[in-house]
Amino acid sequence: MSDKHQQKMAKLKENVDASIAAADTERGVMIVLTGNGKGKSSSAFGMVMRSLGYGYKVGVVQFIKGEQLSGEELYVREKCPEVTFYQMGTGFTWDTQDRSGDIAAAERTWAVAAQLLADPSVHLVVLDELTYMLSFKYLDQQMVLDALANRPAEQSVVVTGRGGGSELLALADTVSELKEVKHAYNSGIKARRGVDF
Amino acid sequence: MSDKHQQKMAKLKENVDASIAAADTERGVMIVLTGNGKGKSSSAFGMVMRSLGYGYKVGVVQFIKGEQLSGEELYVREKCPEVTFYQMGTGFTWDTQDRSGDIAAAERTWAVAAQLLADPSVHLVVLDELTYMLSFKYLDQQMVLDALANRPAEQSVVVTGRGGGSELLALADTVSELKEVKHAYNSGIKARRGVDF
Repeated sequence: MSDKHQQKMAKLKENVDASIAAADTERGVMIVLTGNGKGKSSSAFGMVMRSLGYGYKVGVVQFIKGEQLSGEELYVREKCPEVTFYQMGTGFTWDTQDRSGDIAAAERTWAVAAQLLADPSVHLVVLDELTYMLSFKYLDQQMVLDALANRPAEQSVVVTGRGGGSELLALADTVSELKEVKHAYNSGIKARRGVDF
Repeated sequence: MSDKHQQKMAKLKENVDASIAAADTERGVMIVLTGNGKGKSSSAFGMVMRSLGYGYKVGVVQFIKGEQLSGEELYVREKCPEVTFYQMGTGFTWDTQDRSGDIAAAERTWAVAAQLLADPSVHLVVLDELTYMLSFKYLDQQMVLDALANRPAEQSVVVTGRGGGSELLALADTVSELKEVKHAYNSGIKARRGVDF
């Protein structure tokens, strides 16, 4: 083998080992997936699959979503009855012109989230598109941050959605910003079933 | 309700409607999830869940992975026997010092990917961490690009991994770059079972 290859492998290993050695705190993490690129919600559902692989209890709360049926909803409802799954549903749509109705729906949905965030038996909580509830001021930011901060130590939580605000990002352990480099619909390609929804 | 809210809702709806109206081509898409942030592989597995929700046939090929058991592997192997799942396995690890052995393993793994990319009955193919096979020149780039470009029109494919090269990104319909804003291990928090693996 070449020396260059060996050096590359050694360097990779060194970096990975250093990170692993330095990280010794075991607890649940808070992850925020933000930005305008594709993949935020699907990433959250990939983590749902991960947790289910180990037999952990999972809760999913979807804000905004509800008009269009999605593959992940179909899958979780049909194949994973053990997952707590709640959708804000018809309370909020892109067509809404009813702010007080939206707020009431957001609060009903948040009540489910708050219950999950207080339950130490739940390993992973997904709060899909929660950020919009904060940007639109449908939910009180301090109430949301307190519930996230005070969740059980072993519980992880994934928040998705564009924006979210600096306080939410500051509270998170891991933040990935998904940048749209390009998106198929800009080339005239329709959203794809089983991929985009 | 407030005028400002109504305007915001109307603008959101207008933008979404414009994109939907403009996009009228129906075909499979090629998605690349790249960048150094957390969430690339999990996003791919979220799309696996989406496709399974609609009962579509799915194939997953994992390059590099293999030393550490993951939740998604456990889940797919135990709960989704209908998914074609192949892992490069012990052929490549961060400890490897055997370039020719790595190349042989990459080629064996690619053979499974190539078969999936030629099968019109497969709705979604995930090529997890394929990009490294290109950066390390374990696989011939043109061979990989040709197989991706010539796949069945209805088939979607998701490629994950850092880098990948400009040709791969050019071929893709959708590219999201996951930027690490912060990561838990930099605060000394260990990788979390059911979340990070």
